[in-house]
Amino acid sequence: MKAGFYQYCPVFGKTEENLRRVLSAVRDTDADLLVLPEFFATGYQFVSREEVAGLSEKIPDGQTTQALSALSQKKNLHIVAGLPEKAGEQFYNSAVLTGPDGFIGVYRKTHLFFEEKLFFSPGDTGFQVWDTVIGRIGIMICFDWYFPESMRTLALMGADVVAHPSNLVLPHCPNSMPVLCRENRVYAVTANRIGQETRKEGPPLRFIGQSQITAPDGTILVRALADNEALLTLDIDPAVARNKAVTSLNNLFEDRRPEMYRIISENRILR
Amino acid sequence: MKAGFYQYCPVFGKTEENLRRVLSAVRDTDADLLVLPEFFATGYQFVSREEVAGLSEKIPDGQTTQALSALSQKKNLHIVAGLPEKAGEQFYNSAVLTGPDGFIGVYRKTHLFFEEKLFFSPGDTGFQVWDTVIGRIGIMICFDWYFPESMRTLALMGADVVAHPSNLVLPHCPNSMPVLCRENRVYAVTANRIGQETRKEGPPLRFIGQSQITAPDGTILVRALADNEALLTLDIDPAVARNKAVTSLNNLFEDRRPEMYRIISENRILR
Repeated sequence: MKAGFYQYCPVFGKTEENLRRVLSAVRDTDADLLVLPEFFATGYQFVSREEVAGLSEKIPDGQTTQALSALSQKKNLHIVAGLPEKAGEQFYNSAVLTGPDGFIGVYRKTHLFFEEKLFFSPGDTGFQVWDTVIGRIGIMICFDWYFPESMRTLALMGADVVAHPSNLVLPHCPNSMPVLCRENRVYAVTANRIGQETRKEGPPLRFIGQSQITAPDGTILVRALADNEALLTLDIDPAVARNKAVTSLNNLFEDRRPEMYRIISENRILR
Repeated sequence: MKAGFYQYCPVFGKTEENLRRVLSAVRDTDADLLVLPEFFATGYQFVSREEVAGLSEKIPDGQTTQALSALSQKKNLHIVAGLPEKAGEQFYNSAVLTGPDGFIGVYRKTHLFFEEKLFFSPGDTGFQVWDTVIGRIGIMICFDWYFPESMRTLALMGADVVAHPSNLVLPHCPNSMPVLCRENRVYAVTANRIGQETRKEGPPLRFIGQSQITAPDGTILVRALADNEALLTLDIDPAVARNKAVTSLNNLFEDRRPEMYRIISENRILR
């Protein structure tokens, strides 16, 4: 499978312009799986609920999901991409998966970061993994990475590849992905954006770029620069992610002791 | 709190000699919490059940736990140290906590590594955290680190410091601890051993040293060398580990979504 990402700097609020630019940039890609950033066509820093309402779209009926579905069908390509979703009275920080037959599914971000909490609802889909012809694809969005339960849940659900649309501003994710991938033996494709936004008083929000593909053994297979637009793809082998052996006597999944982990899924904190 | 570790090379099977050497090496330590390696006084590579039976001890009645308790009482010191435990017909890869009042508790390793499985039973204590006068101390042993549930469970149980007796042979732990500590905002004191053992046919088992104290923000506060005996202590502040804030709107524990993590504590793997 050829997996890849596209990182660039969208112009806030110019959805159609950004979408055209992305579609043009990836039109010759040879990827089988292409991951685009979180909020890839709208920009990130919303400053009012009205703005969110104006830029959010229904999934799958909105123009962005329709455009991605059409591209997937035309290029026989799976795409994972983030966008603000309108669902009834709620808004979600969502990502869609589209494939050769069009729309496949949506994931709504579980762990909201900072002021996303002012406008978006916490995701209600839970983590999901789709069994596609190119492999089992799971999705987490940006800050989800900080919670080890995210990758673990996706891996236990069978993900070979974790698609990770992001708008990272904190510095630690790129160097943490090797640990997360190794402890779960999965691939991760982190698609981050670049540039900055100054949509309110105070210092600009700077995005760290460095989109990255990480292997199940923790190897960083490719990392984009912090400031440059980049479309990168490379061959990965989903079968590698299905071998959870650490030694001839140790297997990452079979050695787990779920009965010892109960507190992790209980709604209490002992402090 | 002054936390520290002692790394050295024990001689296999010479429990009394090793114990004397350790007690002598740490006799002037100013630590409040001292962590010793896994199987610190026996050596690591058992080759028969008879050997395990001969070198395992009851806890707390055995000579090793008694010696550690006496040292703790004399020096007003908490000690975490690994030893093979005999309990009825079972053997466990265990670690004890002793303090100024003597024996406090025992943890039995949850995730056994490689040929430990031939002789030892999987731990049945579950992870535990003890609320002591110097802070809340949790224990995991060596390979437990590879399972993100270990540190997470200890952190959710309230650990400020995770004491981590180890006999590491795989290379990844020292550089992974910053990620584990940061995602849980806890301190970790990894006490590893050095040297090698050749107790059966084949290449020697080489231990990687590099005992390390890692801070809640992921900073490596101190790391010993790979081959040198080392007794290192430094000041840490357990209160730092109780602040789980990431941003003014994000808290590592309050932002968790336990209802989305159920598969982690269920005894099933979807593959």
